[in-house]
Amino acid sequence: MATTEKASPRDRLLDAAARLSYRDGVSVGIEALCRAAGVSKRSMYQLFDSKDAMLAAGLERRVPEYEALFTHPDPESATPRERILYVFERLQDAAADADYHGCPYLAVLVELKDPEHPASKVARRVKEDLAAAFRREAERGGARDPGLLARQLLLLFDGASARSGARVERLDDGLATATAAALLDAAGVR
Amino acid sequence: MATTEKASPRDRLLDAAARLSYRDGVSVGIEALCRAAGVSKRSMYQLFDSKDAMLAAGLERRVPEYEALFTHPDPESATPRERILYVFERLQDAAADADYHGCPYLAVLVELKDPEHPASKVARRVKEDLAAAFRREAERGGARDPGLLARQLLLLFDGASARSGARVERLDDGLATATAAALLDAAGVR
Repeated sequence: MATTEKASPRDRLLDAAARLSYRDGVSVGIEALCRAAGVSKRSMYQLFDSKDAMLAAGLERRVPEYEALFTHPDPESATPRERILYVFERLQDAAADADYHGCPYLAVLVELKDPEHPASKVARRVKEDLAAAFRREAERGGARDPGLLARQLLLLFDGASARSGARVERLDDGLATATAAALLDAAGVR
Repeated sequence: MATTEKASPRDRLLDAAARLSYRDGVSVGIEALCRAAGVSKRSMYQLFDSKDAMLAAGLERRVPEYEALFTHPDPESATPRERILYVFERLQDAAADADYHGCPYLAVLVELKDPEHPASKVARRVKEDLAAAFRREAERGGARDPGLLARQLLLLFDGASARSGARVERLDDGLATATAAALLDAAGVR
């Protein structure tokens, strides 16, 4: 994701939108985004209809990378329980980074407070995808109520990401995986 | 918390700071706050050193009301388990409100991304108080690891408040209490 001279103005703007909104919040100004991208405001408005559209596209562009992070590298040999716990292991690793501010998609939802904002729609879809992945694994793992377990795991995921991102909790002692394991046990996924 | 004509400029500003930052986010402008409070900018700066200080004081002022909301009305007769579940029942009730945007203290932490901001310090203390209350109940209830259970309950509380506030989850079917009950069971708190 390095902003090289070869990257197009569009890519530089998308990178700046994702990076600066994550670091500083969605209220980051258009001037700051254009400056970071090395693109004039006039050129920006030729590429995007609005800052909102640019923010949404910046978030969208990072979805494949985000989803790959949480996908078990050897899904065939892993059990459903292992594939679920893997998500929380990766979250714990991510939270150890000094620049971690929590899940970028949850942060956007909390900050925008507007489900109809184009960036909220991207974020909501990412969350729905993760819930669907949890649900599939819960079904394969024989959970008593796969839908309930998937929702519980999302509460845990977002609570752990928000609290560690806000520096009111640490996950490096395995808090998230231990809690996920307790929920898996309760649901009968061994 | 109605803004009556009898309220002092200071109280009107604190009320506006808490109300508008909750509804619109912490990036709400000083002009909007002064307008909502019916106080000039000049008067505001005679009362507060900065918007940050006003925001922190506005959050601080609502702490007693917030903490009372989650305190069981009959603590003597309730068991530790009941007192813990009561917190999640109240959270579920709060989340049913159309104007609910999640826990105001978690929102401030997520939005500010700065643990040293005066408002972050207020928010962190509120979260620490809730963790301490959970821990006390966990100890009284004979939890195997009261510190771990308290941290797990906070992950759940903040995940449930963030997700319901962002309208990506609903709590009105008892999701939060059911999940808290699973964690209490796992910790041996009957």
